[in-house]
Amino acid sequence: MDKLDVNRFLATSNSLNIADLGNSVGFMVVKNIVESMKRKIPQNKQDKVQFQVFFNDHVRNCFDTLFKSLPPNREYFAAGVPGSIHGRLFPKGTLHFVNSSYALHWLSSIPNELIDKKSPAFNKGKIFYTDSCNEVVQVYAKQFARDMEVFLNARAEELVPGGLMTLLLPCFEVKKYPLVQVVDLLGDCLMVMAEKGLLSEEKLDSFNFPRYNATPKEIEDVIRKNDRFTVEKFQSLGPPSSFVNKPPNIYMFMLFLQTSWGWLIEKHFGSEVVEQVFCLLRKRIVTSSVLTLENIKTVSECFILLRRKAT
Amino acid sequence: MDKLDVNRFLATSNSLNIADLGNSVGFMVVKNIVESMKRKIPQNKQDKVQFQVFFNDHVRNCFDTLFKSLPPNREYFAAGVPGSIHGRLFPKGTLHFVNSSYALHWLSSIPNELIDKKSPAFNKGKIFYTDSCNEVVQVYAKQFARDMEVFLNARAEELVPGGLMTLLLPCFEVKKYPLVQVVDLLGDCLMVMAEKGLLSEEKLDSFNFPRYNATPKEIEDVIRKNDRFTVEKFQSLGPPSSFVNKPPNIYMFMLFLQTSWGWLIEKHFGSEVVEQVFCLLRKRIVTSSVLTLENIKTVSECFILLRRKAT
Repeated sequence: MDKLDVNRFLATSNSLNIADLGNSVGFMVVKNIVESMKRKIPQNKQDKVQFQVFFNDHVRNCFDTLFKSLPPNREYFAAGVPGSIHGRLFPKGTLHFVNSSYALHWLSSIPNELIDKKSPAFNKGKIFYTDSCNEVVQVYAKQFARDMEVFLNARAEELVPGGLMTLLLPCFEVKKYPLVQVVDLLGDCLMVMAEKGLLSEEKLDSFNFPRYNATPKEIEDVIRKNDRFTVEKFQSLGPPSSFVNKPPNIYMFMLFLQTSWGWLIEKHFGSEVVEQVFCLLRKRIVTSSVLTLENIKTVSECFILLRRKAT
Repeated sequence: MDKLDVNRFLATSNSLNIADLGNSVGFMVVKNIVESMKRKIPQNKQDKVQFQVFFNDHVRNCFDTLFKSLPPNREYFAAGVPGSIHGRLFPKGTLHFVNSSYALHWLSSIPNELIDKKSPAFNKGKIFYTDSCNEVVQVYAKQFARDMEVFLNARAEELVPGGLMTLLLPCFEVKKYPLVQVVDLLGDCLMVMAEKGLLSEEKLDSFNFPRYNATPKEIEDVIRKNDRFTVEKFQSLGPPSSFVNKPPNIYMFMLFLQTSWGWLIEKHFGSEVVEQVFCLLRKRIVTSSVLTLENIKTVSECFILLRRKAT
């Protein structure tokens, strides 16, 4: 709220436009943003100002469910915007506030070097970078930086000068935090299934998990190089408090994995193997230390507040 | 295009905002509007201006299908807006052009007088106003005028001064045009089913078809009384040329009816009777004169172009 210069926005528009990107059901976040903005509206303009909120996600997202679950007493006009955050979504200079929670660690695509047999970064028999050679790690890191750059440029166009953007994403100094361990376990499962002939080795070699967990420094570097935003806040956060008291149970955790990773497995390996993959993965997770309290406590994320520069 | 004062819009915004209301898949209409607006943008501003198009329909509409069918090479940023046209959908003064095709003849709700046994307008044993007493006709007409007034007031708030709105709706001097005949046939079918005990008489008495076909004069009266728009064009159109050469075949016609009326039957009478209702209705239509060329030629609609007054 301290960083919100709503008066500056109101000089050119009585409509305050907020976008929640790549998360589609951020009703709580949006409520907080709207309420913070409302408190910064001068008394004599309180009645005139109206809010428009755009909920964005991939076209494959279920917008029908989103629209049916919109809070009934919301203080804003709602719209849905389908499309990738790695591209333009709104006309130039039409947004005052952008939020994106847990979307930027997903890569826009898998770099060809990882699946090209002739490339030094060919990631044979692996689906992630954590146990791979340095070439593979570099290809992942470069794709993340490129995607982040595209994202920042698109948002710099869409935000008004002085507009704010909050980003929340997993962010680690260490390579081996819980969800990464799960991706490694997923890789094991897929390999076992390939050995058993349940899926082709070729399919496995052409699959890489499109996610990268940047360090705080990597993220800061991209933002500073891009130079279209000032960094108002950059904060490393520990694990969510709900986790610290009680680690997630396996049922909820598998539900989360199937919702957020299921489409990916289905798209690459076909719908017929999805159930088997997650069944195998569940067994692996249960016998691993992934969901132990000690392990969960290593989870951390970055909260970043950026302001669009004036020119 | 002659009526478009795009330069006036560009004085305050480089984003031209278009809304297609209650029709959700008006890609062709939107394309025409965008192309017309583009031609009116001065040469030196051509590169700066961007379009945002809002596709609106009821929450029950399938927005997922809409988003997946968006034209790939569209010249605009697309958004979906769920909600009734009989209420506010956008912040004040944020739209430059509104279109609504074939939505305004649907009533927002069924007036209570029609289903209240003590009311002089109780529409016993009937589902429509065409064969009913004058009281019933008046209640339908008043609801249409009220809905239209609410619609005009909402759009007057949302459009910028000078903003344009095009409306297309069925519009007749005569009471008995083809689709009305079909509503009457639907009423017959429901009555037959009630007599056979396939649906309760009470359910039938509490159902009225929420549609009103206004005359051009009725529509003009509401617009003039509302006084927030100038009438730039008011044109009665004959039947679509595709119909004049060849009446719609029964298969396509039933598909249209099930898509546009099915939810209504389902909502009131329950999903278990929908198939039977449309099966019976199909038989009635086939043995009637509804789809004869002579009959179809009586179809007519109104095209109305309105401009939001300056204050």
